[in-house]
Amino acid sequence: MISRSELVQRDNNDELSSYRQHFQLPNDIIYLDGNSLGALPKVAAERVQQVTEQQWGKSLIGSWNEHDWVNLPQVVGDKIAPIIGADKGQVICCDSISVNLFKLLASAITLQQHSGKTDILSSQDNFPTDLYIAQGLSQLMGEQHVTFTDVAEQQLLDSIDDNTAVVMITEVNFRTGKLLDTQALAEKAHQHGALIIVDLAHSAGVIPSQLDNWQVDFAVGCTYKYLNGGPGAPAFVYVNKRWHGQLQQPISGWFGHRAPFDFSADYSPAADIKQFLAGTPAIISMAAVDSALTLYEDLDLQQVRTKSQQLTELFQQRVIERKLNHVLKLQSPEHSDQRGSQLSYANEFAYGLCQALIARGVIADFRAPNNIRFGFAPLYNRFVDVYDAVEQIEQMIERQEHLSEQWQQRSQVT
Amino acid sequence: MISRSELVQRDNNDELSSYRQHFQLPNDIIYLDGNSLGALPKVAAERVQQVTEQQWGKSLIGSWNEHDWVNLPQVVGDKIAPIIGADKGQVICCDSISVNLFKLLASAITLQQHSGKTDILSSQDNFPTDLYIAQGLSQLMGEQHVTFTDVAEQQLLDSIDDNTAVVMITEVNFRTGKLLDTQALAEKAHQHGALIIVDLAHSAGVIPSQLDNWQVDFAVGCTYKYLNGGPGAPAFVYVNKRWHGQLQQPISGWFGHRAPFDFSADYSPAADIKQFLAGTPAIISMAAVDSALTLYEDLDLQQVRTKSQQLTELFQQRVIERKLNHVLKLQSPEHSDQRGSQLSYANEFAYGLCQALIARGVIADFRAPNNIRFGFAPLYNRFVDVYDAVEQIEQMIERQEHLSEQWQQRSQVT
Repeated sequence: MISRSELVQRDNNDELSSYRQHFQLPNDIIYLDGNSLGALPKVAAERVQQVTEQQWGKSLIGSWNEHDWVNLPQVVGDKIAPIIGADKGQVICCDSISVNLFKLLASAITLQQHSGKTDILSSQDNFPTDLYIAQGLSQLMGEQHVTFTDVAEQQLLDSIDDNTAVVMITEVNFRTGKLLDTQALAEKAHQHGALIIVDLAHSAGVIPSQLDNWQVDFAVGCTYKYLNGGPGAPAFVYVNKRWHGQLQQPISGWFGHRAPFDFSADYSPAADIKQFLAGTPAIISMAAVDSALTLYEDLDLQQVRTKSQQLTELFQQRVIERKLNHVLKLQSPEHSDQRGSQLSYANEFAYGLCQALIARGVIADFRAPNNIRFGFAPLYNRFVDVYDAVEQIEQMIERQEHLSEQWQQRSQVT
Repeated sequence: MISRSELVQRDNNDELSSYRQHFQLPNDIIYLDGNSLGALPKVAAERVQQVTEQQWGKSLIGSWNEHDWVNLPQVVGDKIAPIIGADKGQVICCDSISVNLFKLLASAITLQQHSGKTDILSSQDNFPTDLYIAQGLSQLMGEQHVTFTDVAEQQLLDSIDDNTAVVMITEVNFRTGKLLDTQALAEKAHQHGALIIVDLAHSAGVIPSQLDNWQVDFAVGCTYKYLNGGPGAPAFVYVNKRWHGQLQQPISGWFGHRAPFDFSADYSPAADIKQFLAGTPAIISMAAVDSALTLYEDLDLQQVRTKSQQLTELFQQRVIERKLNHVLKLQSPEHSDQRGSQLSYANEFAYGLCQALIARGVIADFRAPNNIRFGFAPLYNRFVDVYDAVEQIEQMIERQEHLSEQWQQRSQVT
């Protein structure tokens, strides 16, 4: 069995270990929920204060030019681009994943009108908001224009056929952490004349996706998980450059106009990725994202992926070694190359397990109905954190703290 | 002619004068652009830092419950409600005006399907994003389902007829400052079986709108102008309670679900205003709005309106007294009760006028093609500011600074 001191040594040898100092992390917790909300980069705290007090407070409206607020969505997009395997000019930061998916689904369905194909195909276990947005679009436009089919995740590839207009996937399953084969799905989609939209919510920052190489059409993603952009930070949109200038993006707000400050009465879309902007950008939140992304500037994403796999492997190995696998039933794929940077376990008392662990300072999260998730953020989670977390789990289970009556009632968010 | 010392006295007697100290305002400028971006409330700077460092930084994911982030959109909405003449439970803070207008227009058009009416009626001089969003919805759904008609502003009331499905107005014209008669437009709309959507971008915080009394159906508004919520801060949506539970809001993201944390695969909308949420709320930006709204807590909006009218009256009076009205040609209504909290002047060199004034520390803004706008924020603008601003304008015009070659080329945002 591996010892704690071996892991201390491993952390010392870890080339990514220097990143942890750039985060403000409480000393008394082990944070294994960076897949839900990334920790606070120190630079983000400074930047938020600077944007608020120095820019808004002192330069006021002049900041749109003076501090280049007006281009922040593209500036941030271009910082995200290399993280998801995209050339610059194809990514923009704006709105939420939900709103951005609506824009993309509507654009993709409109683009498919010539083919007569109307069906959006997804998996039943996609993140709910993705499913909801497809349902909302179908209800708005009517089933003669948009239909929605969801199949079991393992049936997804085989279900793509000539009737498929758009394939909509999330690369890493939010519950199980299963990593889908985006490249294979994109190829199959294209063979059948379908478009593909990839949700990178649980990928961006830990999976070296290759959107350009895989010829993905569209993608969305989240900046508040592994990219550490802050609670509810603006999301991003990727549109492969082969579609630029050819799309009808229906939430056609003024920031997506070719020349917003001409105040023309007629909408004329920007010919580039800016077409995916709608309203005025949320500057304070977006500035936090911008600063957090500086941590990714010189980072080798393959190195991040390797450490991520090592962390999940170590955790699962320790769970087995400590014979905790009768309580924590692995729901994630067994092999680390088939999963994202999280582990998911099923247990009928998963909510209690999660709460009892939080009470011990190990922060994981619960996903209804019976999953406990552990997320691993290679920029600040250490190998020794994994050791300590499993120790806490073992003690917690021995004392049956998860069966306590106080966890019978669930709170709203966990 | 009124003297500067009389205005100093007037400021001293002004019951709202104590509010100015709650803002961080640079000493060397006169800020007359609060209609574009409100000044920084000191409490917002503190709150942003607290949310970032204390909440995100220390409580991390736990903040969603511990600091009630999960209910922030409704909490903020309920603070906005009295400012726009609405009972609580009908307003929610989220997304941008553009995105929110899309939600409302789509919901309203869907609600009208039984009537067979498809036409959205607006004025040509409505704020461009409002027009663009209607155009985008029409293009997405097709002209058999959604048509869009824009008429001259003065024809709006007379143009409402039995073919009108939705009347979409902005209560205060962004260019001219003209205040429309929302109540009359709502009545006429309802007489013809139409719904009305009111954009309160230039109203909220300075015009005591009475949405409930006027039986307005839907509204959107901005928090970063007179409500001082910060650059690109989340907007708000008002849905009159008679429509709750009856709408199909198509951007059906998970935060609008009846029970988002059940992670059900099927969308089932919240039965209340929460249905208008889509993605995860932008907490840092929204917290700034929340704190800025504390300034409105004990405020008599009629008092704000009175001071606002006095400020615009004084400015226009001084422009005439100083014989500047041959250069500054009033585009706003002559009587202060027919305009919002701004004055708009036309001049072929409006861009130069604006830039030369900014160079002198008087911050106004330019709106293409030939308007200069002065906004008056009764919470921090003083009567003496009006006097000093007009002095600067007079000197600037005397020296023909606005004709300088350096203002020949326009920058992106002004």
